[in-house]
Amino acid sequence: MGELKKAVQFAQTGHPPDVVEIVDMETDPVGPGDVLLDVEAAAINPPHLLTLAGGYGVQPELPAVPGGEGIGMVVAVGDAVTDVKLGERVMIPLYSGGCWRQQIVVPAERVTVKFPPEGDPIQLSMIMANPPAAWQLLNTVVDLEPGDWVIQNAANSAVGNYLMQLASIYGFHTVNVVRREGLEDQIAEARGDICIVDGPDLGERVKAATNGADIKLAVDAVGGEATQHLADSLAEDGVIVSYGLLSGEPCSLSPKDIIFRNVRLQGMWTSKWLQGRGSTPESRAAVYDELRGYILDGRLSARIDATYPLAQIKEAVTHGMNQRDGKVIILPNA
Amino acid sequence: MGELKKAVQFAQTGHPPDVVEIVDMETDPVGPGDVLLDVEAAAINPPHLLTLAGGYGVQPELPAVPGGEGIGMVVAVGDAVTDVKLGERVMIPLYSGGCWRQQIVVPAERVTVKFPPEGDPIQLSMIMANPPAAWQLLNTVVDLEPGDWVIQNAANSAVGNYLMQLASIYGFHTVNVVRREGLEDQIAEARGDICIVDGPDLGERVKAATNGADIKLAVDAVGGEATQHLADSLAEDGVIVSYGLLSGEPCSLSPKDIIFRNVRLQGMWTSKWLQGRGSTPESRAAVYDELRGYILDGRLSARIDATYPLAQIKEAVTHGMNQRDGKVIILPNA
Repeated sequence: MGELKKAVQFAQTGHPPDVVEIVDMETDPVGPGDVLLDVEAAAINPPHLLTLAGGYGVQPELPAVPGGEGIGMVVAVGDAVTDVKLGERVMIPLYSGGCWRQQIVVPAERVTVKFPPEGDPIQLSMIMANPPAAWQLLNTVVDLEPGDWVIQNAANSAVGNYLMQLASIYGFHTVNVVRREGLEDQIAEARGDICIVDGPDLGERVKAATNGADIKLAVDAVGGEATQHLADSLAEDGVIVSYGLLSGEPCSLSPKDIIFRNVRLQGMWTSKWLQGRGSTPESRAAVYDELRGYILDGRLSARIDATYPLAQIKEAVTHGMNQRDGKVIILPNA
Repeated sequence: MGELKKAVQFAQTGHPPDVVEIVDMETDPVGPGDVLLDVEAAAINPPHLLTLAGGYGVQPELPAVPGGEGIGMVVAVGDAVTDVKLGERVMIPLYSGGCWRQQIVVPAERVTVKFPPEGDPIQLSMIMANPPAAWQLLNTVVDLEPGDWVIQNAANSAVGNYLMQLASIYGFHTVNVVRREGLEDQIAEARGDICIVDGPDLGERVKAATNGADIKLAVDAVGGEATQHLADSLAEDGVIVSYGLLSGEPCSLSPKDIIFRNVRLQGMWTSKWLQGRGSTPESRAAVYDELRGYILDGRLSARIDATYPLAQIKEAVTHGMNQRDGKVIILPNA
């Protein structure tokens, strides 16, 4: 019998803090091609909460362990494993079956991203989804050069923060649209150029704030009228890329912008990219190499609102549901 | 002084029948490189009405002669002109300054499309804008092969009719969405495969009518909710191309389709193509050669609702605003 370790489990969906519980779970056997990881840190992201509530697009068979990304320390290695070493720190691979647990067994061949021991495990634990999303938004939609302008809404989101930081690294300028006052300091801290509150006259105010800069790319996580506000801010031939559903409303976009100003609207879904749409294992490895370097040198980071040990999972999940100013992180072995 | 001829003029924008008036206008002198045309026929198209109302993408300096396309008979030729002959029938070149007039002087070098004497001048008078629009929609947005499906709304419009006919020539199947019952015969006459009335459940009905065909291209002249209905009918990775403003509403499109199904929304503006965006003089000449052949052999035609002499321009424009079953044509020298 394997060792008993603590894990978060949910046997039914519902109000997230009510459905999560701590259980003793036998760690799977470490097969010849597997590695055993101690989970160091794992973020609570909106899709995880949606999954607990039963509202995500793909629901796991229950009972299940929640959590989609995290960082682990290799504490055991199968006999046939050559590329992963004891004591290495790695990204927990996509679809490993839930990261909110103390230990997890994964196939070594799926371990593709490793981290040096001196890195901050909390910042590195969030590399899987949001930093590549920001990378994709800036690198795969339109050709941008240093000095070019990008506009995004929901700029104080996790992806929004990474996008500002990455744009700053690339020498792009950002107009960062938010939905409430008082976020100027957060935007400046993430090296965003302009912080502006959304509204029907956004286009005019953006023009004034940028001295009429030609903005080639708009990044839309909101939808509804906010999509049109971005279009109003875009130059002719500009592209709006949609990646979020925050308003719950359909994107609204005037055919005059589409036809007469050649504004295009398209989507970006990082899950598909992770699965190989527009990427190969090699190209993804190169992206993670790049992003890991920025995280290690401190240029790419997420604000952390709180960390919780596994025992406080209900408080952690409640905090995650109300999070406004940074990420909530679970430290399963703290 | 040149001869006085009748022309339509508008000195201000507004309700189209109110702003058009018949004036006596001196025909410009025929320079050495010019030709003088008697305008045989000129259509009333929605963009002309939008221009009269002040709502088009590009507005002329006023007063101006409306009308963007027509067919003319060469009745005088400048001394230096070699490529255009007296008695030839030609397409009035783009931006000749308004076709709703009896005579017009144009530079011979801009006369690039000629017609044989046996062609129907009314059908040929409409070659400039709508047939290339249908051509562009089918040839420049996605790669289609014989047997592929295309869906369009406002299918009983002029462009819609040309699109059905052209799709049939190419071997594409069409789902033709209309906004009222009773148009099955018109759709069948234009060789459209399926005629279907728009509605919130369009996607389901299209799936049933096509046995679940993968539809790669959706052509949207309507906007508003109709855009979402097209998205509901499209296959994953499908493209919606918007080219009309018929509903007056912004295009509505769920970010779920954009992100999770990779549906894109882009525009098509034939005016820009005529001016060289995505085209050269040679490529446009090839397109007109192709389309002229289809018009002359009868495979491409528009329904004609009525013809009017110049003197009845207010009635003609009013009819054009209410046109439902075919084109309204002005015959300036009738």
